[in-house]
Amino acid sequence: MKIPVEISARHVHLSSQDLDKLFGPGYELKKLKDLSQPGEFAAEEKVTAVKDANFTFRIVGPTRKQSQIEIAASEAKVLGLKPPLRLSGHLCCVWSKLEVAGPQGKTKVKVIRAKRHLHCSPADAEKLNIKNNSQVKVKIDNSQGMIFDNVIVRVGENYKLACHLDIDEANASGLGRVCGFGHLVK
Amino acid sequence: MKIPVEISARHVHLSSQDLDKLFGPGYELKKLKDLSQPGEFAAEEKVTAVKDANFTFRIVGPTRKQSQIEIAASEAKVLGLKPPLRLSGHLCCVWSKLEVAGPQGKTKVKVIRAKRHLHCSPADAEKLNIKNNSQVKVKIDNSQGMIFDNVIVRVGENYKLACHLDIDEANASGLGRVCGFGHLVK
Repeated sequence: MKIPVEISARHVHLSSQDLDKLFGPGYELKKLKDLSQPGEFAAEEKVTAVKDANFTFRIVGPTRKQSQIEIAASEAKVLGLKPPLRLSGHLCCVWSKLEVAGPQGKTKVKVIRAKRHLHCSPADAEKLNIKNNSQVKVKIDNSQGMIFDNVIVRVGENYKLACHLDIDEANASGLGRVCGFGHLVK
Repeated sequence: MKIPVEISARHVHLSSQDLDKLFGPGYELKKLKDLSQPGEFAAEEKVTAVKDANFTFRIVGPTRKQSQIEIAASEAKVLGLKPPLRLSGHLCCVWSKLEVAGPQGKTKVKVIRAKRHLHCSPADAEKLNIKNNSQVKVKIDNSQGMIFDNVIVRVGENYKLACHLDIDEANASGLGRVCGFGHLVK
């Protein structure tokens, strides 16, 4: 069973409080395009790192309970950050923060490297014989032979089958900036 | 058996003709430090990409028959290059070239992404039960669980056991800029 592999460029999720701080009270994000996971979208808006204007972060909507920046290791190094490897939303004891600016203000946001994961629906999980929170190996379907072990399975009613990697993982495995395919291996 | 994993930053090997062009006739490289493979050394000298002075390439000595630049995919993208994935020295049909400058001149050098490989002595090859030009899987010894398949084995009398990865592969697998450890997996 082919598994779509999608590459997440660096981005930021914002709480409504932080969105207000950065873009003004009651601001609503403008959708640029839907992302593969239902309900998630890339917004037109970006924020900029205060310490280095070369680093912009597209906002992924809708707003969440907690703000977080997801960044690859190579980019974190340039910014002098050492973010921990975490599942999205697992922000307890994350001390790595970056100040970002929007048109109306600034705020500090927790920074993580996103732990690679496999979104799948309950039906796909059954077909693949995998369970929520289990870890699987995903081999990329190209000549470079990269195998990602410890890929966390995230089963959800609304999830669409997709393995999410960051830019460093994409570069290292010969994938383009957008997507590719892989399959589970033992 | 632990396998040292070493990270190769982007660098250039030069022919004596290209060294002459870039640094002047009869120029001799100054050794900065020995590298792990006997006889190879990082030189004090660097060359600079003509199209982007942010990109310098340390020269790895001694001179070779053919010049080649080894670069990671992420860096190649910034320079607008699409270098093929090749073993060092396998430069037939490599069309990707970059013009570099030294203090005395410029020259165009073929550019590759170095295919990951495992240097080992005949004795280590026997212990590991692997052969020259075979391909093995190397799993990195950390929590991220990266497995590099299709690692080419290069057996040589003078080789010291080491798996060589590029910067993208290091970033993707949670290794620092210098080294780590791995082991063979089936």
